Amino acid sequence: HAHQPNDVIRKIVLTIDTMNPRVKNVEYAVRGPIVQRAMQIEKELREGLKKPFTEVIKANIGDAHAMGQQPITFFRQVLALCSYPELLNENMFPEDAKNRARRILHACGGGSVGAYSASQGIDCVRQDVACYIERRDGGVPCDPDNVYLTTGASDGIVTMLKLLVCGEGASRTGVMISIPQYPLYSAALAELGAVQVNYYLNEEKCWSMDLSELESSLAEARKHCNPKALCIINPGNPTGQVQSRQCIEDVIRFAAKERLFLMADEVYQDNVYAEGCQFHSFKKVLFELGPEYSDNVELASFHSTSKCYMGECGFRGGYMEVINMDAEVQAQLSKLVSVRLCPPVPGQALMDLVVNSPQPGEPSHITFMKERTATLSLLAEKAKLTEQILNTVPGITCNPVQGAMYSFPNISLPEKSIKEAKALGQAPDMFYCMNLLEETGICLVPGSGFGQKDGTYHFRMTILPPTDKLKILLAKVKEFHQKFTQQYS
Amino acid sequence: HAHQPNDVIRKIVLTIDTMNPRVKNVEYAVRGPIVQRAMQIEKELREGLKKPFTEVIKANIGDAHAMGQQPITFFRQVLALCSYPELLNENMFPEDAKNRARRILHACGGGSVGAYSASQGIDCVRQDVACYIERRDGGVPCDPDNVYLTTGASDGIVTMLKLLVCGEGASRTGVMISIPQYPLYSAALAELGAVQVNYYLNEEKCWSMDLSELESSLAEARKHCNPKALCIINPGNPTGQVQSRQCIEDVIRFAAKERLFLMADEVYQDNVYAEGCQFHSFKKVLFELGPEYSDNVELASFHSTSKCYMGECGFRGGYMEVINMDAEVQAQLSKLVSVRLCPPVPGQALMDLVVNSPQPGEPSHITFMKERTATLSLLAEKAKLTEQILNTVPGITCNPVQGAMYSFPNISLPEKSIKEAKALGQAPDMFYCMNLLEETGICLVPGSGFGQKDGTYHFRMTILPPTDKLKILLAKVKEFHQKFTQQYS
Repeated sequence: HAHQPNDVIRKIVLTIDTMNPRVKNVEYAVRGPIVQRAMQIEKELREGLKKPFTEVIKANIGDAHAMGQQPITFFRQVLALCSYPELLNENMFPEDAKNRARRILHACGGGSVGAYSASQGIDCVRQDVACYIERRDGGVPCDPDNVYLTTGASDGIVTMLKLLVCGEGASRTGVMISIPQYPLYSAALAELGAVQVNYYLNEEKCWSMDLSELESSLAEARKHCNPKALCIINPGNPTGQVQSRQCIEDVIRFAAKERLFLMADEVYQDNVYAEGCQFHSFKKVLFELGPEYSDNVELASFHSTSKCYMGECGFRGGYMEVINMDAEVQAQLSKLVSVRLCPPVPGQALMDLVVNSPQPGEPSHITFMKERTATLSLLAEKAKLTEQILNTVPGITCNPVQGAMYSFPNISLPEKSIKEAKALGQAPDMFYCMNLLEETGICLVPGSGFGQKDGTYHFRMTILPPTDKLKILLAKVKEFHQKFTQQYS
Repeated sequence: HAHQPNDVIRKIVLTIDTMNPRVKNVEYAVRGPIVQRAMQIEKELREGLKKPFTEVIKANIGDAHAMGQQPITFFRQVLALCSYPELLNENMFPEDAKNRARRILHACGGGSVGAYSASQGIDCVRQDVACYIERRDGGVPCDPDNVYLTTGASDGIVTMLKLLVCGEGASRTGVMISIPQYPLYSAALAELGAVQVNYYLNEEKCWSMDLSELESSLAEARKHCNPKALCIINPGNPTGQVQSRQCIEDVIRFAAKERLFLMADEVYQDNVYAEGCQFHSFKKVLFELGPEYSDNVELASFHSTSKCYMGECGFRGGYMEVINMDAEVQAQLSKLVSVRLCPPVPGQALMDLVVNSPQPGEPSHITFMKERTATLSLLAEKAKLTEQILNTVPGITCNPVQGAMYSFPNISLPEKSIKEAKALGQAPDMFYCMNLLEETGICLVPGSGFGQKDGTYHFRMTILPPTDKLKILLAKVKEFHQKFTQQYS
């Protein structure tokens, strides 16, 4: 084993030259350099430094509560009861909140959310998840043994990839991911040493999936690796589209024909805003295609407490359901998750409440529905507003935000700005977003952090800021874009 | 890429033959086959099946609340306040609990524990951790920038190993771990493809570390891999020893001389029971050895909310502190943790309370101290009781349980039972523990799940059951051991 000369001088073991090179290849734009600079600017503002703005507006991450969205009262009541069961003796909470808390606590070791749960998740929570999936999918059966609670959806996705990825050289596992993608995927693939196989979403057709693109991407990949899995994010992140039923059918037929393991990231399943759009779960469509597909195609689908109307990112709750997984492999999956003991129990409790929310006739039902509807309506409004205002800007083209929490508009950048960016060693849209941040305090993530067709530029912007701030943000982006275009023309 | 014939028949992608072989190599005894059988037996008992016992007593895992330990009132009050801040308006909570909750909420995005935190953890929590470490270590400075909050200690340990492990063939990274070990280490090393380098603890000297053993283990390992790191668990899991200050000094000097990155798993730092034993943090000893060591030796130390007097495993809270880490590597670490967004925020809040507990003069201080002391005194009693009773059994030899939560007694097994186990393809102590479980309902983990010297046999038993149950458990173990010895003699 070689010692680098600088190790000897500094007498340390772990240097940039000796560390795991796969970790060095990891990139995660959503919390990358632009966000670090935004945090620095916030600190500068607090310290009294003069800027052309008084606050940083962060539209870089799907973090609803940080943007002022209020938690669902019922959820938080039950969580408080689970944390401090003495509160069950008080008269301040509705009976349905108390019942949910009692049921969860009864399922916990020693009646405490401080005990480890089963590694796959608390039994009754997995049963509730199974019932929820059956209701959602019009009765398609769901076996709680196929449900695994997770530490957010990210944890489930990485766990599935760990099972799939192996091999070296031409037999290295390839995993197909959409471009633009959510960078958890590229980061996990880099860390695991898998081949990232890109397929491009069709921006002209509202970020839909093209069968011909999937086919050519796969054919190309097969020349140098072993593609095993196909990942889909629906509703889309960062692109905000909602895939049509037809498209999902096509993808399933493609996966069956080409023998690919499907991974469906469906964490935005309640975030559908556009007229005529509807969420179709991959599982439901799979079963509607009949036993030729439903008995054979392997599918893992992922959900989370972090998005939809609840936006409870901090609790790191989630689940995955696996379908048609080989029994021996599933035993390996169960063993693998046991090493990390269990997902956080408060997150499991929250996941339970999401799939087992107050029902008609229960005391909390009306308030719950009011809060849920208000949040989703507001998001729908902001989705529309974002699309409309961005499309008034010459040089910005924005697809409808049909779902999820993001717009991913195409931005025309003047040649001179592209040259200047390249001279600085920056991606042109990173240069654009950095300038936007410095001049306006608005924090967006450049399209290059998600991937995009060569020669096109984008940014991802969440629709989460409160309406008044969102309007300011959009007006500032408009003004900035015009100024930037002029400046570099 | 080769298709296995059975893949074609079953038309599935992911089989035991095509999956990641590293995952197949993972083993985790603490939740292994014996625990699965215990859960099955519990189900059988519920269904009315007759057994020679009426309940399963689980002493397989360090899960205090599951064994009836009560949570610390103050911690749970603050967690309830954080979950449902409306409670701040009620008069039912002490002012110090409200103040802690307000401080934590103020540090959360949008004032909600449902927002993502910074990936490294909430700023003020990391500051509180740093103050705690400074107090604990008699003023040795701690920089909050070197503190990373984690999803339990396991998460921190795996993250550090990810940075360290790389290479193929003779340059594969080797990581030294104690035998017996906590099987998270072997599991993580298997998954990452590192070489597990065993060093044996000295059972005759109460599971202490021998310098000569470290030296010979390292010399041997250097013939076929690149040993980079040395892991220590102190107080010990599964062996319950507390390392002396001298021993820690020796280990640090050894790491410095041999240029090994130190990983100190110190999650049991408050669990020290034996007269004359004291917890010495690796960091404190490192700094007391002077700048030759404190400026050079790289150390990561790990703590958690799951053990000590709080036992809050379900919240998955923890932190790690890194010392003398190369700045570029630390930037990579910060990037790596950002991919998983953040540790669970309720677990971060709980970690904050552990390091910033009620102080003299605060309204909750007396109750807090009473609860803390009662729990630790009871554990000390049970540690003593376990050692004493086990040592009355002919054929069982138990070292003092100086700390942590486990005894790891040596058991003599009759030759005939060893033969019978081998005929069944089982480790002899697995055969023993399985028989114990079937006959008495007691669930222990065989020593083979942790590693032990060839030809010796052990089991790990937690000291956590309530005293009355612990006494029954120990009496049953005694009776069983005598019967088993007779039966196979």
